[in-house]
Amino acid sequence: MHHNNSGEFEIINRFLRKFTHFPADLIVPPGDDCAVIRISDHYNLLVTTDMLVEDIHFMRDACILRHLGHKAIAVNLSDIAAMGGIPAHAFISLAVPKSIANSFFEDFSDGVSDMCHRYNVSLSGGDMTGSTDKIVINVCIIGMTDGGRYLKRSGAKVGDCIQISGPLGGSAAGLDLFSRKKDVNRFPSLVKAHCAPEPRIHVGQALNTIPEIHAMIDISDGLLQDLGHICRQSQTGAVVYSEDVSLFEEALKATNDNEDLVVKWALTGGEDYELIWTVDPSAENAAIEAALSAGAPLPKTIGKIVSGNQLTVLKNNQIWNPSVKGWDHFRN
Amino acid sequence: MHHNNSGEFEIINRFLRKFTHFPADLIVPPGDDCAVIRISDHYNLLVTTDMLVEDIHFMRDACILRHLGHKAIAVNLSDIAAMGGIPAHAFISLAVPKSIANSFFEDFSDGVSDMCHRYNVSLSGGDMTGSTDKIVINVCIIGMTDGGRYLKRSGAKVGDCIQISGPLGGSAAGLDLFSRKKDVNRFPSLVKAHCAPEPRIHVGQALNTIPEIHAMIDISDGLLQDLGHICRQSQTGAVVYSEDVSLFEEALKATNDNEDLVVKWALTGGEDYELIWTVDPSAENAAIEAALSAGAPLPKTIGKIVSGNQLTVLKNNQIWNPSVKGWDHFRN
Repeated sequence: MHHNNSGEFEIINRFLRKFTHFPADLIVPPGDDCAVIRISDHYNLLVTTDMLVEDIHFMRDACILRHLGHKAIAVNLSDIAAMGGIPAHAFISLAVPKSIANSFFEDFSDGVSDMCHRYNVSLSGGDMTGSTDKIVINVCIIGMTDGGRYLKRSGAKVGDCIQISGPLGGSAAGLDLFSRKKDVNRFPSLVKAHCAPEPRIHVGQALNTIPEIHAMIDISDGLLQDLGHICRQSQTGAVVYSEDVSLFEEALKATNDNEDLVVKWALTGGEDYELIWTVDPSAENAAIEAALSAGAPLPKTIGKIVSGNQLTVLKNNQIWNPSVKGWDHFRN
Repeated sequence: MHHNNSGEFEIINRFLRKFTHFPADLIVPPGDDCAVIRISDHYNLLVTTDMLVEDIHFMRDACILRHLGHKAIAVNLSDIAAMGGIPAHAFISLAVPKSIANSFFEDFSDGVSDMCHRYNVSLSGGDMTGSTDKIVINVCIIGMTDGGRYLKRSGAKVGDCIQISGPLGGSAAGLDLFSRKKDVNRFPSLVKAHCAPEPRIHVGQALNTIPEIHAMIDISDGLLQDLGHICRQSQTGAVVYSEDVSLFEEALKATNDNEDLVVKWALTGGEDYELIWTVDPSAENAAIEAALSAGAPLPKTIGKIVSGNQLTVLKNNQIWNPSVKGWDHFRN
């Protein structure tokens, strides 16, 4: 299960408590970016699923349907990327109100088709049904591991460098434009960051070949929340130097250089779909170079894994306490 | 893709037209009960997904949440059963309005948990999110084939007997009680048939070992519509003797022996989740016995596969033309 925001945690935990006997082939049970199912010594399946609900995850009027098709595939590919996997088969379920059924599919399927072709994913099945009023999209993607190897959220070691694949805050800035219905056309890169994020599939695969990398996750809920998952599951703490977190340039422009706001978006905004990983300092540069060669826009070291269970953000050597800890579907 | 009712067909076909290059490992592409992904000579994965939407597939007030959990798993297991497969891993996505989130999960998860335990299915992942007002449930189940063997919808041969695993019309009769809010407590077996159908997993597995069985499907959309899928995909016609289709006994009682109505429900009502298969006449009895031993409530021969492309229903030697051809989410 992912998108495990704090408000959902308790509910999900209560749900999962009834399911405690996992079969031997489920070598990574719920709680990571993907489930991992062992087929043989060098062959594991990765499985992930994500549901997008109208008026919770997207607004019908604000969003281009082509982007919606893109995003439904992208958020699942990002989970495969976070384990360093190779995506293979997608299964899409759609609930669409009768009134828009015909016009919906053409543009939506263009977005799905484009993403599937680019990442060599087969649309191998699905389900389509009516709905009373809202669009609901569920995608399940099955992927494979390269030679059986994959990266989990757990595994970070004290002393590891925390690295990230690109600048943050673009998605939250794009969402802000949509919610204020302002300047949407002036900042296409923010619209793209929010509506059509790029999953870091090739970056994840490149990092998965470096043995000194110990843990990885994608940023769906926000840097602090997702790094928090790594810490909790690795039983470590972390220090993040907020000056080292790159900010999405157009987000600064769109806010007239309101750096405080963009830093807050970068740390807690979510849906940037960059990767965070932890690496032994001996391979700090090797990891940056591998990520860069695989297309990461701006790979950087942003902090350190430390002992304990605290996640500390330092901003100009001061401890920074964000008031919002991510994006929570049940609480907001 | 399944639940391919006639109204949805055109839309789905247009959607699928963009996805024509299937990878070599997808040995059964969209269009059957499950996608089949080849792992090795004797090892295939079966994958199916189904979405249940509030006020389309179920009413919140009418349904017991425990039954809803049961049914969400059962309809997917039925697709695995229709190919003779062994279910293994379930992935559940849930969108639930904040207002009922807490009370929802307890009972719903009891139903899910019970089905998973009974059929040895692991709840291996999922996604949970809020929704504005309606409950939406998506389940994706991954199964395996026994030694690589599976039954498809295509493959029926002219001269085959058409057989069915049990009586029909119970689910439609149950739905009718709910829609009239009448006598629900007097007919528990109809409530169960509609709200908590039993997937014929063991029956499907037993039939999958008989080489003379050529095609199989489960009844989700209605006997005629689902048998129509076998005929279309096998390029055959079929004759069904409606007197030989067993009617659900309590459905007759609940309608004061309105046999015409119950026959119509049996042929077109859908959601009975019994299996239909076609078998060479040399193995007619062997198939009935295998189904019976595996727990089929009333396996019977109900017709014959013929040449041509017509599906003919004979009722007392007269051709019967049902006015409603199944259950169509987009048209009804």
